[in-house]
Amino acid sequence: MALIVQKFGGSSVANAERVMNVARIITDTYKEGNNVVVVVSAQGDTTDDLIEKANEINPKASKREMDMLLTAGEQISISLLAMAIESLGYPVISLLGWQAGFETNSAYGSARISTVKTERLQKELDQRKIVIVAGFQGLNKYEDLTTLGRGGSDTSAVAIAAALHADRCQIFTDVTGVFTADPRKVENTQKLNDITYDEMLEFATLGAQVLNNRSVEMAKKYNVELEVLSSMVREPGTIVREVAKMEKMLIRGVTKDTDIARISVVGIKDIPGNAFKMFSKLAAKGINIDVILQSVGRDGTKDISFTCASSHADEAVEILNDIYSMEGGVVTSDTTVAKVSIVGAGMQSHSGTASKMFGALYEAGINISMISTSEITISVLIDKELADKAVSAVHKAFFG
Amino acid sequence: MALIVQKFGGSSVANAERVMNVARIITDTYKEGNNVVVVVSAQGDTTDDLIEKANEINPKASKREMDMLLTAGEQISISLLAMAIESLGYPVISLLGWQAGFETNSAYGSARISTVKTERLQKELDQRKIVIVAGFQGLNKYEDLTTLGRGGSDTSAVAIAAALHADRCQIFTDVTGVFTADPRKVENTQKLNDITYDEMLEFATLGAQVLNNRSVEMAKKYNVELEVLSSMVREPGTIVREVAKMEKMLIRGVTKDTDIARISVVGIKDIPGNAFKMFSKLAAKGINIDVILQSVGRDGTKDISFTCASSHADEAVEILNDIYSMEGGVVTSDTTVAKVSIVGAGMQSHSGTASKMFGALYEAGINISMISTSEITISVLIDKELADKAVSAVHKAFFG
Repeated sequence: MALIVQKFGGSSVANAERVMNVARIITDTYKEGNNVVVVVSAQGDTTDDLIEKANEINPKASKREMDMLLTAGEQISISLLAMAIESLGYPVISLLGWQAGFETNSAYGSARISTVKTERLQKELDQRKIVIVAGFQGLNKYEDLTTLGRGGSDTSAVAIAAALHADRCQIFTDVTGVFTADPRKVENTQKLNDITYDEMLEFATLGAQVLNNRSVEMAKKYNVELEVLSSMVREPGTIVREVAKMEKMLIRGVTKDTDIARISVVGIKDIPGNAFKMFSKLAAKGINIDVILQSVGRDGTKDISFTCASSHADEAVEILNDIYSMEGGVVTSDTTVAKVSIVGAGMQSHSGTASKMFGALYEAGINISMISTSEITISVLIDKELADKAVSAVHKAFFG
Repeated sequence: MALIVQKFGGSSVANAERVMNVARIITDTYKEGNNVVVVVSAQGDTTDDLIEKANEINPKASKREMDMLLTAGEQISISLLAMAIESLGYPVISLLGWQAGFETNSAYGSARISTVKTERLQKELDQRKIVIVAGFQGLNKYEDLTTLGRGGSDTSAVAIAAALHADRCQIFTDVTGVFTADPRKVENTQKLNDITYDEMLEFATLGAQVLNNRSVEMAKKYNVELEVLSSMVREPGTIVREVAKMEKMLIRGVTKDTDIARISVVGIKDIPGNAFKMFSKLAAKGINIDVILQSVGRDGTKDISFTCASSHADEAVEILNDIYSMEGGVVTSDTTVAKVSIVGAGMQSHSGTASKMFGALYEAGINISMISTSEITISVLIDKELADKAVSAVHKAFFG
């Protein structure tokens, strides 16, 4: 008998019909002889509706009360899903985050799970019940409700899978798995059978919104085998695990991130510590910077460019102006850029991967303005309007 | 410094505007130097909406999962009310039933409060916080959520007031207090300044839906001083306490109950134990019977009539047919009746009260078909169509 953790997002349980569909997926897994723990998010627009209710009354409500409000969303979805499973005639029980043993720190709105106490979960599983757990939520040491922030239900699912040493954690989404590129935009994409944690992390970081990074990091740390699959189409998805089997494949996919800005500082003094000063001030404000390019400017000055999320662009410019405008530095931001990347652990041991990518872009007539590489990624900065064309060209070069 | 418990029903917090109105009532009470604990129900139609969602998925859902679902309603209202109070600049915290220490038995859907552990409540009050508590809900010994059933939030409020030895428990409603008769239908009604628990219980039992009986019984048991008042009109309400002060007033009010049926069994054997058999079978099915009339029938048989809630009429007829149809008894039910009652502890020591009531009905040309009396009530059964006329006539006789 295997123990499977299944996670369903808000759109998978948005209405009665979808709740019944999810109930059938769960009971089919149970019927095969597995123990099943299910983590579910709030239905469809529930969270947004609750936030709107709060904003009508107090747009500056405390995070503690916001968490009290929002956690009601999953409470509704777990009980409805449990009722659906009852109607199919299977033993089931719904548990709130705190009932399922989720203990967190007190960072309301973005709490971190400190531990999952599994006594109650185990007791219900021992009675062969399907257990439905409210994702996204926990309890802090003051016995107050907390939420885990964005992508929190994925993290809840992985945390339960880790705590119960589950055989697999299935993350149900609206896609059937992880693809070599976005199948809605690129021809001849292939679904990956498996992928490593590090590759999955790069995919997520590079804009492919399949899995939340925090949940993948946790899965890697506790060696939880993930499967990304669809709640609408019944077929095997993509497995995420430490060692992926498709060693022959150089790269796993091509992704793009159009939600970025290039910030440039031109004409700053070429003295030691300038880059440190710049990036430590940005880090202190929570601005993550990515591709960095430093070059020699005129008259013994230097120029530094980097990319960050476009939502942070204005704040980054402001911070840099505070530092450099006095000494003549000119700070500009450009949001007409996109980052296109190839991801794959296989490229470490192969030469020619980068030149193959650059060649494909050259043939497509696309100019590269910045390049960045890691062990398992190569990223280029290009004109945002050409992003889809670039992804297709690079995908064709590698996947035909 | 006094400790005031305030309870607001669902219609009082139905939308953002009403939530702000309630927040101002609470903060005004707090500003006067009082500690304030607030018990609040789910907003407006929330509970009905949730029940509809459940019925769409599984009309026969377990009560355990229904309670999990419905308790989300108060979770939403307590957090929104806390946010409203935050916006007015007062220290506040919302607590779920279990956080506020409500422990209940495991009768999902109609749980009884076993105890209110006040540590958390007291801790928050000691910090001079306004405490907003979710009514209607608690936790059983399995650490599962329960609901208290109909009128549960009133009961929650009284239980907290009793546990904290509050100085007063204010129940905010859509009326400004308890009246000598329904002011929408009877002229010259008077608002009562105070009323005893027993009188209030009779009012509730007799159809005046101001307070839930269970909460009044609990208030009597723990000697909690109640005040019934309006959340819309700011004026003193009606105090409910052990000894009411208006000793001169013979009766406190006139009420009617049109939601009743008269069940008659004609021609049953006149042997000992027949009435016992009848009423014990009805009691076993949870059917409360009220006014009873037994008379001698033809040929040594007897006839028994009684009243019960009209919603129980069909079931009562069925039960009685099972018992008596074999021996020739004929069971009929009549839902064209109403019960009109006068209530008042003062009538115990005064003669002539009954004759004054009967005289008023006679003068109004209203026929009385059954009469029942207790220490503080006199009730008559009349034609339902004449109920309003009867209440007005009796009210005029006693209150001019």
